[in-house]
Amino acid sequence: MQNLLTPLRFLERASAVHPTRTAIIDGPRTFSYAATAAEVTRLAHALRAKGLQPGDRVAYLAPNCAELLIAHFAVPLAGGVLVTINTRLSPEEVAGIVQHSGAAYLIGEGVLLEPARAELALVNTLLEVIALPAESGEAVDLAFSTRYQDLLAAGSDEPIAYTVLDEDAPISVNYTSGTTGEPKGVVYTHRGAYLNALGQVIHQGFVDGSCYLWTLPMFHCNGWCTTWALTAVSGTHVCLRATRADDIWHLIDHTGITHMAGAPTVLLMMRESTFAHPLRQSLTVTTAGAPPSPSIIEAFAELNVRVIHVYGLTETYGPYTVCEPQDAWRELPVAERARLMARQGVGMITADQARVIASYGESDELIDVPADGVTMGEIVMRGNTVMKEYFRDPEATEKAFRGGWFHSGDLGVRYLDGYIRLLDRAKDIIISGGENISTVEVEHALASHPAVADVAVIAVPDERWGERPKAFVVLTPGRSAEQAELIGHVKQHIAKFKAPKSVDFVLELPRTSTGKIRKDLLRQAEWAGHESGIQ
Amino acid sequence: MQNLLTPLRFLERASAVHPTRTAIIDGPRTFSYAATAAEVTRLAHALRAKGLQPGDRVAYLAPNCAELLIAHFAVPLAGGVLVTINTRLSPEEVAGIVQHSGAAYLIGEGVLLEPARAELALVNTLLEVIALPAESGEAVDLAFSTRYQDLLAAGSDEPIAYTVLDEDAPISVNYTSGTTGEPKGVVYTHRGAYLNALGQVIHQGFVDGSCYLWTLPMFHCNGWCTTWALTAVSGTHVCLRATRADDIWHLIDHTGITHMAGAPTVLLMMRESTFAHPLRQSLTVTTAGAPPSPSIIEAFAELNVRVIHVYGLTETYGPYTVCEPQDAWRELPVAERARLMARQGVGMITADQARVIASYGESDELIDVPADGVTMGEIVMRGNTVMKEYFRDPEATEKAFRGGWFHSGDLGVRYLDGYIRLLDRAKDIIISGGENISTVEVEHALASHPAVADVAVIAVPDERWGERPKAFVVLTPGRSAEQAELIGHVKQHIAKFKAPKSVDFVLELPRTSTGKIRKDLLRQAEWAGHESGIQ
Repeated sequence: MQNLLTPLRFLERASAVHPTRTAIIDGPRTFSYAATAAEVTRLAHALRAKGLQPGDRVAYLAPNCAELLIAHFAVPLAGGVLVTINTRLSPEEVAGIVQHSGAAYLIGEGVLLEPARAELALVNTLLEVIALPAESGEAVDLAFSTRYQDLLAAGSDEPIAYTVLDEDAPISVNYTSGTTGEPKGVVYTHRGAYLNALGQVIHQGFVDGSCYLWTLPMFHCNGWCTTWALTAVSGTHVCLRATRADDIWHLIDHTGITHMAGAPTVLLMMRESTFAHPLRQSLTVTTAGAPPSPSIIEAFAELNVRVIHVYGLTETYGPYTVCEPQDAWRELPVAERARLMARQGVGMITADQARVIASYGESDELIDVPADGVTMGEIVMRGNTVMKEYFRDPEATEKAFRGGWFHSGDLGVRYLDGYIRLLDRAKDIIISGGENISTVEVEHALASHPAVADVAVIAVPDERWGERPKAFVVLTPGRSAEQAELIGHVKQHIAKFKAPKSVDFVLELPRTSTGKIRKDLLRQAEWAGHESGIQ
Repeated sequence: MQNLLTPLRFLERASAVHPTRTAIIDGPRTFSYAATAAEVTRLAHALRAKGLQPGDRVAYLAPNCAELLIAHFAVPLAGGVLVTINTRLSPEEVAGIVQHSGAAYLIGEGVLLEPARAELALVNTLLEVIALPAESGEAVDLAFSTRYQDLLAAGSDEPIAYTVLDEDAPISVNYTSGTTGEPKGVVYTHRGAYLNALGQVIHQGFVDGSCYLWTLPMFHCNGWCTTWALTAVSGTHVCLRATRADDIWHLIDHTGITHMAGAPTVLLMMRESTFAHPLRQSLTVTTAGAPPSPSIIEAFAELNVRVIHVYGLTETYGPYTVCEPQDAWRELPVAERARLMARQGVGMITADQARVIASYGESDELIDVPADGVTMGEIVMRGNTVMKEYFRDPEATEKAFRGGWFHSGDLGVRYLDGYIRLLDRAKDIIISGGENISTVEVEHALASHPAVADVAVIAVPDERWGERPKAFVVLTPGRSAEQAELIGHVKQHIAKFKAPKSVDFVLELPRTSTGKIRKDLLRQAEWAGHESGIQ
C-alpha cells in the first residue's frame, strides 16, 4: 500500500532527490545515494533469489560499515527482517542469537566470523555464511563462507517498490545485551522505525545533508534508528569501525561532521584526547546508555559542543526520552544546568509519556509515584516507539507489558517539572538501614572530584546497616587522591549515609561488550561467603 | 488507543513539558501552554455538554486569533471535526459552507458574523451561533449569538485523554476556494494531520521553542498544519489578525520571530515596506500558493531571510513538495539559484512523490511525461498527506483519485533532476499556434523588469494564432515603462512567440479572497463577443 509507514521511503526519496550526494563514507570507499540505492536493490534481489520469504530473518555480524548500513534497507526491501548482532559477543552468544532468530543467512566480517566457525556449524537454521569485503573493498575468503560479492552478483537492478503491505510487520529483531539471563529478541516494526526515525530527526536536530559520525554501533537498536533517520534527511553516514578518540577528533575536524552519538564513555574518551579542542563549527552529540555526569556535560559546553541527553532501551527503539532544556535553565550557572541536564527528561514528540510507577491498582492499572524527586518507582513507556514483542517469547512479552505499559526494569524518580531521573537499574539499588541509596548518585558525587576519571559503586555487606556502598575508582592520569579525601568529598555533596564505606583504586573497570560496567563481577568478590546479596 | 497517531499528542506534550512557556500571543493577550491546554479541555467539555457527538462538525469564522488556535485542539479533543471558514468569503458563501458541512455550531468573530445574519438564519443544520471575544478579551454580544465566554463556562477542567479511537477518523474539513464551481470539503484525518505536521517541522525547520508569526491564515489548510506542527515543538504562536507589512516587520524585530509563511504577495508587501531591512537574526519564511518570482527570492536573500519554497493544495494538507536546494546550487550566482528555487521541487519526507502525468495506460495506470523540463502534464500526488475524500461527495472523490493518485488539476513539467515546476493551473494555459504558453513563465519574465511590481497574463483571442498572451501590469511606484519596452524585455528572456501581444497598465489586479488573481474577470472583458475562450 502506498500510504503505509516504512523507512524504505527515506531511501527512495534520498536517492531520487540527491542521487550524487555522498550517502556513505567507509574508510577509503564512498557511496553516493544512487550507488547506495543500487546496491540495496541488487542485494534485495539476491536475497530473494536465495529463496528469502517475507518475514525471514537475515543476520549480520559487522562493525559500522557501508554494507551494514545498506542491509538496513536491503533486507526489509527484500521482505526480510534484519538481525544485527553485537560484534563484542562471544562465539557462543553469536551462535545462540542466530539460532534463536532462526536466520538462514549470516553475513559478517571475516575476522568476526572466523572465531565462531565451530559454534556456527551447530546452528541448525543456518544455510549459508557470507563474508563481507574488507574496508578496502577487497573480497574476503573463508573456508566456510561465500563471498558477499558473489551474493550481490546474483542480484539484479530491476526496481523494487519501496513499499510494504503491512506497516506493523517486523523490520528488525534486536537482541538485548542483558548481563544476566538469555538475550531476548526485540521486534521492531516498519511503523515504529519510521516514527522513531522522524523523532530522532527532530530531537537530534538533523537537517537536510547533516553529516553523522557513526561512533554509536549500528547494531545497537539499529543505531537508535539513525540508520533510517539520517537517510530521511539525505545525510552523509561516516562509518567508524573502531571507536578511537583521535580518529573521532580527526573526522570532526576534517570531514564536516555535524552530529554524532555515543555513551558517556565515548564522551569521556573524547574529553581526555590530546586532540580535544573547542570547536568553531556546530556539533551536536547525543548521549545515552547511562546518565552523563555533570562534569562531562560541563566539559562539553566548554568545547562548544551541544550535548543532548536521551534515554531509552533496546525495547524502545533506542531513545525514548530527551532531557529537553527549559527556558529558565539558560540563566543558571553551568554546573546547575548540567545537573538538570543529567536527568533523563520527558517522552519525545513521537513517543508517549514516560511514567514512574509505584504500584498496581485493581485490574493492574499503574499508580504513579508522587512527583517529588525522591520516591523511587519503575520507569514505564508505551506507544509507537515501544517494541511490538519479544521474538517467539509471548510469556516474556506479556510480563513486560503488565498494565498496558512496557516495564523497563529501571528505577527512577519524577520531579515536580515532570522530568524523570534514572536512579538505578533495578538490581543496582543499595538498601542501607532501610534507606534506598542510588549507586548513580554516589557515582556522580565521586565523579565530580577532579582526581576521579571513572567510578563504579556497588552494595557491600555491612553488619550494622545491611548494605553499604563501596566505590571502585580509576584515577585521572597524573592525579592522586586518598580514600578519606574522596569519602569526605562525597559527604560534602550528598547525604552522609550515602558515602561509600570504602574506596578501592583500580586501573580499569570491568565492562560488558556494550560498555556497561559489570557490577556483577565487582559484587562477586565482595559478597563471597554471604548468603544473600544483589547479583 | 494509545499508539494511534493524532496531533492532540502535541498539545499533551507541550503543556506537560513547557507549561509556563508562552503558547499564544494575540495582541495584548498571552496564553501559556498550561492555560492553552486548560481552555482546550474546558471548551471540549462545553461542546460535549451541548450534545456534540463523535464526528460532528464545528465551524469557525475567525481571523488568526487565540481561540482559533485553541479550536484546532478543542474540537477534535471533544471528538468533533473542525471546519474553518475563510473570513474573506461572502455571507452567502459562509452560509453555504456551514450548510454543506452540516455544522450545528458556528463560532466566529462578531464583525464577521453580523453581516451574515440573514444568510445564516437559513442554514437548517445550525443550532447556535457563538461570538468570540474581541482581541482585548472582552465579550462580544450580537442579537443572534451567545457569548464564547458563556459557552466556556459550561465546560469543566476534568482531564480528557489526548487520544483517538481511529487515526483515520476526520479531524477537519477544509473547503476549497476555487474561483469556479461549488466549494468542496476536503477531509483531513488525525493520521494525515500528525504526519504532515511532522513534515512541516522538518521542512520548515521548526525547533524546540520556535516563534512563529501567523501571517498565513489558520483557515487555509489549518495553517498548513502549522497549528499542530508548531505545537509539536512547544513553539510560540504569534497571531496576526490582519496582514500589514509594517506590523510584520515590527513583530520580527521585537518579538523574536524565527519563522513565518505566506504567499508571494505577502513577501512582495514585506519587500516594499519602508521598514524592510537586512536581518541579523535567523528568520525562515516559507512561501507557497504561487511560484515566487526569481526577483523576490533574490531580494529576500539580500535581506538575510531564508526562503523555503513549497507547493501544495488544500487537498494535500497544504505543502506537499519542497524545492530542496541541491548542494551544487551553492556555487551558482544568486539569480540562477533563484531561478532553480522558483520550481516546486520534490515530495516532502512525509509525503510520497509528486508525479507529472501525460496520459493513462490500460486499467488507468498513469504515464509520466518525459523529464525534459518541457513536456507539460498534470501534477498528481498520493499518500498520507493527501486528503481522505471530499466530504459527502463520492463522485468528485472518485474522479480526483483516478488511477490511485490525487489529480491536482495543476499543469507542470518535470526536469531531469526530478524537480517539478508548476506552469499553470489547468485552465490558465495559452495555446498559441499549437504551442503551449505558460502564463506563469510570461509573468516571471515581466516581473524581472524593475518597473513591474505586479503582473497577470491571460490568453486573448487572436485571428492568426488562435490565442495570444496579454499582460496586465502594475508599475513599481516611481518607475515608468512603455508597452514596447516590456515586450522587448520579455523577448530577451524567453521564446519570442511567448511575448504578450499587448500590455495594459492598471492600478491593481483583481484578486480572490485568498489572494489568487481573478483571471476570469480579466478574461471576461477580453473575450466578450467571442464564442469560445478560457474561463
